[in-house]
Amino acid sequence: MKKRNYSIILGNLGNTCDRFLSTGYKDQPSKEELFRRAASIDDASGIELVGSWDITTENVKQVKALLEETGKKCMSIIPELFSSKIWGKGAFTSRDPDIRKKAVEHTKEMIDAAVELGCDLMNLWPGEDGYDYPLQGNFDEAYSQLLEAIRECADYNRNVRIALEFKPKEPRNYCYLARSADTLLMALDTERENVGVTIDTGHAMVAGENIAEAAFRLNSKGKLFHLHFNDNYRSWDDDMIVGSIHHVEYIELLYWLRKMDYRGWYSMDQYPYREDGVKAISESIENLKALETVIDRYGEGRIGDLIKEGNATEITAAVREMLFKR
Amino acid sequence: MKKRNYSIILGNLGNTCDRFLSTGYKDQPSKEELFRRAASIDDASGIELVGSWDITTENVKQVKALLEETGKKCMSIIPELFSSKIWGKGAFTSRDPDIRKKAVEHTKEMIDAAVELGCDLMNLWPGEDGYDYPLQGNFDEAYSQLLEAIRECADYNRNVRIALEFKPKEPRNYCYLARSADTLLMALDTERENVGVTIDTGHAMVAGENIAEAAFRLNSKGKLFHLHFNDNYRSWDDDMIVGSIHHVEYIELLYWLRKMDYRGWYSMDQYPYREDGVKAISESIENLKALETVIDRYGEGRIGDLIKEGNATEITAAVREMLFKR
Amino acid sequence: MKKRNYSIILGNLGNTCDRFLSTGYKDQPSKEELFRRAASIDDASGIELVGSWDITTENVKQVKALLEETGKKCMSIIPELFSSKIWGKGAFTSRDPDIRKKAVEHTKEMIDAAVELGCDLMNLWPGEDGYDYPLQGNFDEAYSQLLEAIRECADYNRNVRIALEFKPKEPRNYCYLARSADTLLMALDTERENVGVTIDTGHAMVAGENIAEAAFRLNSKGKLFHLHFNDNYRSWDDDMIVGSIHHVEYIELLYWLRKMDYRGWYSMDQYPYREDGVKAISESIENLKALETVIDRYGEGRIGDLIKEGNATEITAAVREMLFKR
Amino acid sequence: MKKRNYSIILGNLGNTCDRFLSTGYKDQPSKEELFRRAASIDDASGIELVGSWDITTENVKQVKALLEETGKKCMSIIPELFSSKIWGKGAFTSRDPDIRKKAVEHTKEMIDAAVELGCDLMNLWPGEDGYDYPLQGNFDEAYSQLLEAIRECADYNRNVRIALEFKPKEPRNYCYLARSADTLLMALDTERENVGVTIDTGHAMVAGENIAEAAFRLNSKGKLFHLHFNDNYRSWDDDMIVGSIHHVEYIELLYWLRKMDYRGWYSMDQYPYREDGVKAISESIENLKALETVIDRYGEGRIGDLIKEGNATEITAAVREMLFKR
Repeated sequence: MKKRNYSIILGNLGNTCDRFLSTGYKDQPSKEELFRRAASIDDASGIELVGSWDITTENVKQVKALLEETGKKCMSIIPELFSSKIWGKGAFTSRDPDIRKKAVEHTKEMIDAAVELGCDLMNLWPGEDGYDYPLQGNFDEAYSQLLEAIRECADYNRNVRIALEFKPKEPRNYCYLARSADTLLMALDTERENVGVTIDTGHAMVAGENIAEAAFRLNSKGKLFHLHFNDNYRSWDDDMIVGSIHHVEYIELLYWLRKMDYRGWYSMDQYPYREDGVKAISESIENLKALETVIDRYGEGRIGDLIKEGNATEITAAVREMLFKR
Repeated sequence: MKKRNYSIILGNLGNTCDRFLSTGYKDQPSKEELFRRAASIDDASGIELVGSWDITTENVKQVKALLEETGKKCMSIIPELFSSKIWGKGAFTSRDPDIRKKAVEHTKEMIDAAVELGCDLMNLWPGEDGYDYPLQGNFDEAYSQLLEAIRECADYNRNVRIALEFKPKEPRNYCYLARSADTLLMALDTERENVGVTIDTGHAMVAGENIAEAAFRLNSKGKLFHLHFNDNYRSWDDDMIVGSIHHVEYIELLYWLRKMDYRGWYSMDQYPYREDGVKAISESIENLKALETVIDRYGEGRIGDLIKEGNATEITAAVREMLFKR
Repeated sequence: MKKRNYSIILGNLGNTCDRFLSTGYKDQPSKEELFRRAASIDDASGIELVGSWDITTENVKQVKALLEETGKKCMSIIPELFSSKIWGKGAFTSRDPDIRKKAVEHTKEMIDAAVELGCDLMNLWPGEDGYDYPLQGNFDEAYSQLLEAIRECADYNRNVRIALEFKPKEPRNYCYLARSADTLLMALDTERENVGVTIDTGHAMVAGENIAEAAFRLNSKGKLFHLHFNDNYRSWDDDMIVGSIHHVEYIELLYWLRKMDYRGWYSMDQYPYREDGVKAISESIENLKALETVIDRYGEGRIGDLIKEGNATEITAAVREMLFKR
Repeated sequence: MKKRNYSIILGNLGNTCDRFLSTGYKDQPSKEELFRRAASIDDASGIELVGSWDITTENVKQVKALLEETGKKCMSIIPELFSSKIWGKGAFTSRDPDIRKKAVEHTKEMIDAAVELGCDLMNLWPGEDGYDYPLQGNFDEAYSQLLEAIRECADYNRNVRIALEFKPKEPRNYCYLARSADTLLMALDTERENVGVTIDTGHAMVAGENIAEAAFRLNSKGKLFHLHFNDNYRSWDDDMIVGSIHHVEYIELLYWLRKMDYRGWYSMDQYPYREDGVKAISESIENLKALETVIDRYGEGRIGDLIKEGNATEITAAVREMLFKR
């Protein structure tokens, strides 16, 4: 079996809160403890950092040292555009030009930090860029602002790839980067080679998308830059352990990723509110590894034949063989 | 492993149509052919018949003979209250008293037919009893009419159990028997021992219910009378092959059914629009059998311990063992 | 027009946070400021307080004084069972008996506080009582624990009514008090006259329920104790301004509340993340008042006729007259 | 007020069926009667015809005569790619090359028929092109086939515009043209000026899209070719009367259509299962006209200011003024 590049988001190992329990379900560990926890997850070779939470212009050296201790690579930085009051009514599309400017500045700073850490990927999630009420979205202005901001970030350093993460809702009732194809259009509209898209598997399911189909479409335009993994019940971004609800659709996704020779990261992105973070993330990786083994054992070629044929009862029998045959 | 009583709905083996392709995706076979197909599914010992479609006051003897040839038992009749123009605006709750009367009459006729076939279970799905638009539902009248109609049917023959099947929507935008607890309340309100509830697994998922929890609640009042099995993507009653999307929740359901010593039928209820009916139904039974084997192998006691503990990461590891360990 | 008893939840006027922006979209005002804001909403004669946030065993006298200054009545207390780490894995159904005991104790303390404030209604929302993953819900134990806890609280002071608030999900992926009928069953099972149900309009919509039908069913058992008002897009508890999305269904609800002679409170329960709290709450009351005027002008009798007839095109024409005729 | 071009789909005035009541809720009128009904809807100046149902290569002259009698224009033809057994497993993306060929042929025939009727718009809804089960979608093949088929149809007559209608699901669990941006990408990929997109308002809502935002995005690429109007509860394509559930979002849409100077058709597309077809369609047009009047009275400029400002409580107050002020 070919080795996949699994990675984790550092913050997932710390405290997690919701809107009712805003101080969180757990205690917030120190940065050092967070890195120690990350180090303990052997299967993950990469770490995704969140701006401000994990990394700032001030602490790059400290973080670099901590990364070296863990023996893991920082493979992506997620600029913090969703957890400060300043972005509350929008970051790149704020009606306040100063805030828009600050959002671009923070992203550029994080690009610089990435470079210093030897990382060439930004996962850009402008979660607060959207609207809540009908008649509130100023699509015209907002789309231009978003496009220009992304271009400016992309041009700042052409060697750093920017992966736009989409999500239909939360924290806004409607987010501007909502679904895979909207976001692909935005990426194409930037006319920048270094702008692409991240699929968060849970966001795609909430959007009603088949994840593998979304991946195929992005890849067909050369724009599948990154993947975030989690599971949910399809109505909301529950950010659960991968494979706690769904299996067949992950098999489908992993198969298509092989077929399109995806060489990027498989990053775990969860919210283990009430679970031990290390265990919850590790379970996801274990499940993904188990699903890869299933594909190996059943055979990529045979899966390709199933897809070519498209016969639902044969597919079901095959899935039963994959999961249950001893 | 204890043997389960699997059954099938005869009509699932015939033609299936949708609102766009109203003549159906397949050809309609003869009644004889339908029974031959049913006979070919070895694992199913029971057959569910739909009133008017399969069985009428006129053809009971013919059907009895066909059943004898198949070697299968008619274990339930579903009165036809959803596929004739007359019920279009409601059956038991029609604003036309003649139609209400006819709905009760048809149900009574089907009860008589059931008795003649040695069957003691009616699966009552008043799908057209509901409303579509706000300000259209006359809850007051409708609830009384529904209650009285069910009572009258229940009293007609106390030896025949009536299982009320719930569904949140389709064919009405809002159905009166919408969810498990609504329907349990209706069943309790009848104050009739022979009135209970059917869970259709797909309907429960569309209602946002955890199927096992719904089963538990019904059983705790002695009202889990019947089960219909199918799978879907949770937003609509897709009536797919069991286990084509979900596995863990079926394991949970099957475990709780064991724990509550459910002795009723496991009836397949699908709409294999584009699939071979016999194969699609057989696949569901095969999957349910495979899931029972998984429970046997892992151990009911150990599953009970998982539930008692309620630790999500341990549950995930256990599910991985159940599905993937070789 | 008959005057309705509008009320507000004090905390809605303060800071609001979500899981990403856990410090909140606004600044947290002082308790005095919160009460001043409440006092400024003339149409609201009642205030709902949340345990721990607003009221504790220690500050009852202070709160009483603040209430007197506002000239408003504390008409309900919501025990705090959803915003402290201790309840993170359940309150009344925690697997830890000490926590279960503390949840009951806190509720009793809040009942005492209510009495001291001349309030006879508790809005009990055990939001953390539920589960997240398949095979995690211990229905058997949990239902008994919930039933016993509610009974104990109800028996503690028979003069204080306990209204159980249901919600299908959030903060748990599955909450035990999930829908109106489940919760009605729980209320009936307690066999206590002083236990009933709260409908939160947004929770009912997320559950796929028609709000008026839910109200009718609860009222038919004498169990419609309380109402929380907000609006959403139906897929999630967006907690928006009433009437920002829906109008017809509120007309339907308000009509049925009149018909059943509901005399309880109309309490605003929102999360104005990015809005001025006082304005957002006031807008909801203004909209409800406007909708009552619509009913007055069109005529309750004529609405009753529409419902009796159930003709969708006549209903639509009538709604157009209600909303648009000048 | 500027006059809008309202149109109707002829078949909506006839019989309507669902998967349970496949013979339909009403009787099927003659073609002549259908046209007489259409003629009676004064506000509609256009008629949309469905291939095979309404128009064939054989009956073009007869249809032309009937249209002339009604005094209405055929402004669009919808090729029949969703209601014959032959398309059951896909039309343009069938795994059978003969069927793919036939789908293109039928579309070309309908283009010829359109030209003969003086119509320059095809509404292309390849509803059966999609898949139902995981591992069934052959994205690679299907996307190429769809692209090539649409190109071939577009090239057949460059003077006829082809508007691709998207829908997330039904009749397939996943349709290939699922959402506005996916379909815009497909339209752009054809590199044909005469290929654009239809928004069906109900389909957009089921897809979780804000309709006005979808319209804006399509228009920004010059690809908003056509509009189908209906209403629903957001979870399914209920095809209800426009304005029976939602009002504010239609105001938003109508405002943006004005702002982008949309000059196409406003076509009613409903499934009045249990309603009088003429009345149900007329009600939708009446509601759209009433909403236009609301915009006129309140003022486009003031609505523009609301959007520019984006203040939710001011928007709510404005909407209340629009709907309720006398």
